[in-house]
Amino acid sequence: MSNLRFTVNGESNSTTQFVANARHFKLVVDEPEDFGGTDAAANPVEYILAGLAGCINVVGHLVAKELGFVISKLNINVSGEINPDRLLGISIHERAGFQSIQINLNPETDADIVTLSKWLKIVENRCPVKDNFRNETPVRLSVEKVYR
Amino acid sequence: MSNLRFTVNGESNSTTQFVANARHFKLVVDEPEDFGGTDAAANPVEYILAGLAGCINVVGHLVAKELGFVISKLNINVSGEINPDRLLGISIHERAGFQSIQINLNPETDADIVTLSKWLKIVENRCPVKDNFRNETPVRLSVEKVYR
Repeated sequence: MSNLRFTVNGESNSTTQFVANARHFKLVVDEPEDFGGTDAAANPVEYILAGLAGCINVVGHLVAKELGFVISKLNINVSGEINPDRLLGISIHERAGFQSIQINLNPETDADIVTLSKWLKIVENRCPVKDNFRNETPVRLSVEKVYR
Repeated sequence: MSNLRFTVNGESNSTTQFVANARHFKLVVDEPEDFGGTDAAANPVEYILAGLAGCINVVGHLVAKELGFVISKLNINVSGEINPDRLLGISIHERAGFQSIQINLNPETDADIVTLSKWLKIVENRCPVKDNFRNETPVRLSVEKVYR
């Protein structure tokens, strides 16, 4: 199949709050007060963890169907740790982002644990968001000043 | 500073819809009807692009303040392409996730373009979400069946 393009376009409402438009959806991002924000919405790293969990959910159900079993409910817990020193300009010894990410899946299903282990390996291999965390992705930035 | 932990925990509402709880925020993820969903919310990859844009916004304002200028408004456009073949189980020749990501920043500011180029390099270096896209991150998955 041909490539699919996804785009988000948005504007800052404040130094921490950002309103991103994705098709007809408005996604508000903010920071907690501890991080200088107004806590109007989840923060950027919570957004990417939610995207990861949502992606695992979609691929999980798709692969279960292929393997011939049904997941009636799927609980997913995603977490990771960030050292804020680089973000805050305190030091460059730590990386800026999550050091690692742990994903725990709790499916309600009739499938046995051997089938679920096989399922998990396939889900891991085919999940787009997991791929973008696990592996390098070229990121290009450009800046153009707006005159108004 | 010590590490900060971020967590998202949630449950599937359907094969495509997922409700993620991040602190006191509820983040609903779905897929468009073309992808088998009910289009109740943005999809997983739009979530991660929104998180990336939101992160660039926060770090952008922080670094501008350090460099002594103000950004009165910041427009950010983030986009990328995904080939769905691996996700759909059609082939393993393509990677699952975004092949690359382009971020265009349009600040309204009094800073000159030389200052903005310097600013952009620092923002890039310190943005947590950009780091997690650009560089490898260990991702560990585990599965445990729920009996109810």
